[in-house]
Amino acid sequence: MKNKNFCIPNGIEYYMPKEALEFERLKVNALKIFKKYKYDYVLPPIFDNLDNLLNLKSSDIDNETITFLDKLSGSEIGIRADITPQIAKIDFQITHGKGNARFAYMGDIIRLSSNLFDRKNPYQIGAEHFGNVSKSTDIEIIKLMIEIISLSGEKKIIIELGNLSIINNILTTLALNDKNKSMLIDLINLKSITEIKSFFKFHNLQKTKLNLIIDLINVSGDIMVLKEIKNILKKYKVNAEAKINELNYIAQSISKYKELVGIQVDLCELHSFNYQSDIVYTAYVPNFRKEIARGGRYIAYTTEKNISRYATGFSLDLKDILYMSKIGKK
Amino acid sequence: MKNKNFCIPNGIEYYMPKEALEFERLKVNALKIFKKYKYDYVLPPIFDNLDNLLNLKSSDIDNETITFLDKLSGSEIGIRADITPQIAKIDFQITHGKGNARFAYMGDIIRLSSNLFDRKNPYQIGAEHFGNVSKSTDIEIIKLMIEIISLSGEKKIIIELGNLSIINNILTTLALNDKNKSMLIDLINLKSITEIKSFFKFHNLQKTKLNLIIDLINVSGDIMVLKEIKNILKKYKVNAEAKINELNYIAQSISKYKELVGIQVDLCELHSFNYQSDIVYTAYVPNFRKEIARGGRYIAYTTEKNISRYATGFSLDLKDILYMSKIGKK
Repeated sequence: MKNKNFCIPNGIEYYMPKEALEFERLKVNALKIFKKYKYDYVLPPIFDNLDNLLNLKSSDIDNETITFLDKLSGSEIGIRADITPQIAKIDFQITHGKGNARFAYMGDIIRLSSNLFDRKNPYQIGAEHFGNVSKSTDIEIIKLMIEIISLSGEKKIIIELGNLSIINNILTTLALNDKNKSMLIDLINLKSITEIKSFFKFHNLQKTKLNLIIDLINVSGDIMVLKEIKNILKKYKVNAEAKINELNYIAQSISKYKELVGIQVDLCELHSFNYQSDIVYTAYVPNFRKEIARGGRYIAYTTEKNISRYATGFSLDLKDILYMSKIGKK
Repeated sequence: MKNKNFCIPNGIEYYMPKEALEFERLKVNALKIFKKYKYDYVLPPIFDNLDNLLNLKSSDIDNETITFLDKLSGSEIGIRADITPQIAKIDFQITHGKGNARFAYMGDIIRLSSNLFDRKNPYQIGAEHFGNVSKSTDIEIIKLMIEIISLSGEKKIIIELGNLSIINNILTTLALNDKNKSMLIDLINLKSITEIKSFFKFHNLQKTKLNLIIDLINVSGDIMVLKEIKNILKKYKVNAEAKINELNYIAQSISKYKELVGIQVDLCELHSFNYQSDIVYTAYVPNFRKEIARGGRYIAYTTEKNISRYATGFSLDLKDILYMSKIGKK
């Protein structure tokens, strides 16, 4: 042994005897939940061809994926930063884009360029539904997500619902270049109204759009705000009633599902990985500095006949669940 | 999706629904075996500081370990090619080199520079006993290893026993440089007697040593050859009776353990990772082109007071066990 000091990189953890067994127990319980919801468990590899890892056209994933050279074959191998792209590949292999399919997964991932306080080596676990995506599919996935989070023993889970397409459509009408658009998205995420105003002034953008965005930022809250949101959209002549009704249906259904669930609505929460662009759901628990799970609808791939394969799914870091379960026992 | 063709690098596997669940079942059953033998399950991370990955002074592991830069900290992170060095670190953390400790583990590793037919991403599983290493410790570890292999449903397991110190001591007396020594080891592994003779002639080495090595190569076989080996060593005045008696005790005990076990003895089997230098054990099953498990005694580290921490342990690739279990069902 070259050095007896046990120095572990920031954001990487060893699990000693008691924790290690608790972690394995969490995995077994997660598998039971997948089975109960009839999601087929699959096991893609942590090292893979880049094409299998980067296929969701998401630049934020591409930037976090580490690659190295396989001397034997001369080809590049990547270490996954997200398992979802591999699951899309599996769906295409098995279904060729036809019918419905449900898959669940778990495994190590690496995310290097993350925040100093973030875990570098999360243990991602999630489920994806492919095919006919409707409000009942989202409800199913959100319930599954709540059951996985409940393995932590948490007594309160907040589900934040949104629909990115509404704010995205508004942003599109502003005709900004990519750099300015992503700057504005950051300001919206931070809900920095003063800076959003300056941004609109500086770029000489429509005052009504500014007011619409500010109104939408100001109405985030519990399930009751959906009515207000509807009125705002009507006022600005944004045609999104069906989308709000859909969100309302999901919110009502989830809020009745379990006592421990609280609902929040926020149409201006744009933090997700950028392949999601429709309904999104994010889960929060008390005393945890960031969201514990997130998911939403996305287009997994386009088939040879140019048909979009729709999907909805969530993922979370099972190490967070272990961490929360230990906090709860204190 | 950039490319719909599902191209997986050689030596890397996806497990689809049925296989994936079978694999998880194997893990759960392995944990039960660890518990039965009272080995503490620990979970070190797949990405780690190089110092935690390369601490067994084994150049073959060092060469297979992939590293990349953590931009945030500026330090190098490695992807493990072997979990054993991390377990040695854990033992030091927990015991500071005192008393006995038993640890078991499993997880992904990567081995790029391996044979074209080898798996690049094995799922290593193993157990290590630290402290007072005696024949009964080896027997315990070998029995545990047999139980893990038996999860495959295999009806025949051959345990090959050896003691590397005997041939190593002979090699040391030849006073070869590293390059020539490793060349001779390769020839011994291949049991190429003609080439070993040429090697001795070319380097002008002692004829008696040559005859001793050839005699030892020729006596590999079942448990009965241990008596012959004893006679050979006596004839060449090699003092190793205690070592042969120890091997005999282990061999007798293991051969009585389970009906399905066959014993082979071979003092000239030098394939192990090069940190092992004493008793070694290798497991073979029919219809599998290479060994299915291997292990042995080694020095895990040296404490501040310059005391060697002895250990014995084995590891195998759980994906091989899944593969064998599927072959068996055909």
